[in-house]
Amino acid sequence: MINQDSLVEASYLLHLEHCGKLEMRSKVPLETKRDLALAYTPGVAEICRRIVDHPEEADRLTWRKNTVAVISDGSAVLGLGNIGPAAALPVMEGKCAIFKRFAGIDAVPIVLATQDTDKIVEIVTALAPSFGAIQLEDISAPRCFEIERRIQEKLTIPVMHDDQHGTAIVVLAGLMNALKVTQKEMGSIRVVLNGAGAAGVAIARLLVRAGVKHLTAVDRTGVIFPGRDGLTEEKRMLADLTDIQAPGTLADAAHGADVLIGVSAPGVFTADILRSMAPGSIVFALANPTPEVLPDVAREAGVAVMATGRSDYANQVNNAICYPGLFRGMLDHGVQKITDEIKLRAAHVIASAIKAPTPEMIIPSMFDEGLHQLVAANVIAQG
Amino acid sequence: MINQDSLVEASYLLHLEHCGKLEMRSKVPLETKRDLALAYTPGVAEICRRIVDHPEEADRLTWRKNTVAVISDGSAVLGLGNIGPAAALPVMEGKCAIFKRFAGIDAVPIVLATQDTDKIVEIVTALAPSFGAIQLEDISAPRCFEIERRIQEKLTIPVMHDDQHGTAIVVLAGLMNALKVTQKEMGSIRVVLNGAGAAGVAIARLLVRAGVKHLTAVDRTGVIFPGRDGLTEEKRMLADLTDIQAPGTLADAAHGADVLIGVSAPGVFTADILRSMAPGSIVFALANPTPEVLPDVAREAGVAVMATGRSDYANQVNNAICYPGLFRGMLDHGVQKITDEIKLRAAHVIASAIKAPTPEMIIPSMFDEGLHQLVAANVIAQG
Repeated sequence: MINQDSLVEASYLLHLEHCGKLEMRSKVPLETKRDLALAYTPGVAEICRRIVDHPEEADRLTWRKNTVAVISDGSAVLGLGNIGPAAALPVMEGKCAIFKRFAGIDAVPIVLATQDTDKIVEIVTALAPSFGAIQLEDISAPRCFEIERRIQEKLTIPVMHDDQHGTAIVVLAGLMNALKVTQKEMGSIRVVLNGAGAAGVAIARLLVRAGVKHLTAVDRTGVIFPGRDGLTEEKRMLADLTDIQAPGTLADAAHGADVLIGVSAPGVFTADILRSMAPGSIVFALANPTPEVLPDVAREAGVAVMATGRSDYANQVNNAICYPGLFRGMLDHGVQKITDEIKLRAAHVIASAIKAPTPEMIIPSMFDEGLHQLVAANVIAQG
Repeated sequence: MINQDSLVEASYLLHLEHCGKLEMRSKVPLETKRDLALAYTPGVAEICRRIVDHPEEADRLTWRKNTVAVISDGSAVLGLGNIGPAAALPVMEGKCAIFKRFAGIDAVPIVLATQDTDKIVEIVTALAPSFGAIQLEDISAPRCFEIERRIQEKLTIPVMHDDQHGTAIVVLAGLMNALKVTQKEMGSIRVVLNGAGAAGVAIARLLVRAGVKHLTAVDRTGVIFPGRDGLTEEKRMLADLTDIQAPGTLADAAHGADVLIGVSAPGVFTADILRSMAPGSIVFALANPTPEVLPDVAREAGVAVMATGRSDYANQVNNAICYPGLFRGMLDHGVQKITDEIKLRAAHVIASAIKAPTPEMIIPSMFDEGLHQLVAANVIAQG
């Protein structure tokens, strides 16, 4: 375990010392009048004219094609909730630093002083000529679904809400390898998903798209089924993806299940619940920083393969395993829209980074040599 | 003279080689799991919490306090006109590269896919929590006046339309030194301003604020005076700043004038017009790339002090002389709004960078050692 007190102190000092985590640099020299005449006026006028005549040249003559805007309204930041734009900025800066470190992408953190869906759609759409892709971050459900969909419909650059799809892709990659370890098949496993936020909906959608046929979704009230009273928009989405039509508790649902995925709350996967699962059980306990169950408790309760959201245990589900390489690949290939096919390929490529999966190794580390390049090179189908 | 063909070619190759002019960098290491835990989760959560509890700490714990957003709608780019956002991006990148090189400011180029005044106000206002200041660029008149005013009214960070105020400040600085050279006084000179765009209005306003009492503004039709038919919004602004109440041509207005300032069109300052000016005449010919008159023609016509917008003649009026140090000073001092007092101080400080002005040296070069630091350190009145 990381010592939290010393980590908090060290993180604070790091941010204070550098005054944030990012800086802008010029790639061209600006030491002489001639340098200035080339990079700025009068030379730049001809660059502008070329782009007027040949709009596609903007991708070769500006930094745009290598950029991603990382945009949040601060409405659902980490586990901290609706903390607003200014307090969300350190997270966006961190994402941008990761984009550069692992994929060479110039990412710009942008936090918005509005949480109005229509305004966010309008603002992000208007920003698009400045960037090669848009990563939406930490926007609360169910607004995040509509915001992502409407922005993507208006633009011809990829738009992805990372809290949904980044998480879903890494979970699917981990599940693919966990199934190899336990010798089970996607089409026959019974999966229970506990938690109905943005990540839960995206995980459910991608698992179904990947071939999962038996899925149960559960929230604090119990099993989510189509006829249940008072379902929110995202819970109705989930209910429509499941094959359960009757009430029940988490314990009821988990009984005999092969896979239990939590995007919920600390400690809710009790040893009793885990012991009731089918042999060769697989558990993703993704609540952060305290998971639904700790790995040692899960192991004692007979769980075969275990993943968490934490870096201090094996098999960390971390979006940063996926998004740098995924965006690198989309930018390099001029992708105009992220599709389910791209997400499925991303999961396959990430899973394939581990040649011989074991219970302690179903998900690669983001520090794995070549992982992000592997994803970038293979996430888009060739020819 | 710069060889235009070779310059165009070299500028194209420079932009192509680097794929634009900017890049983002991480200021913190991301080599180990611990690095990631400090810069990103879980460490960053505490940074977010601190900003929730102490919002002012965002200036110390994020990159925001050292950033400027350079924002354009592409409606009035250089002398190219309304070329739209994508084609404007190379200019914004150039401005950002200059911000970093001369003032260490991390500037982000943002071009907008809208030219609707209300939408631009709404969008830029919403972006504000991400940045320490806003520089508006290449937005056409008269929209630029309203856009700047409304955005600044809504925000507590400086908002400046550089085409207006950057130009005006450097012109005023140059005029201050030109008056020393010609031993004339601000309060008694007669100034003729030819051109009624955004820069013209801003120059007129700042000159009046600096003590100019006799000002005539002229456009293609002739002298702008309050009773003239069909005045646009910006021309009415200009008419109200002048002390002329009757029609006339540029030649009429310039007859006997001490100062002639052009933000207009190539070649319109004829030798006859210049010869008709008062002795010790001062001419700013700022049309770019071809000025209202070339310096050798002006000299032969008896002009005492001459400035242009070009880097290949003495006395270049270039906004980049002003804005890096001006924004550095405003960011360092937590300025919430740019005032006339700040603009006047900026002009004074820039003028003061030349100890003994001569006809060939009334405006410092942006490459002058220490210029930008001088501006930054002195542009805000101390305690």
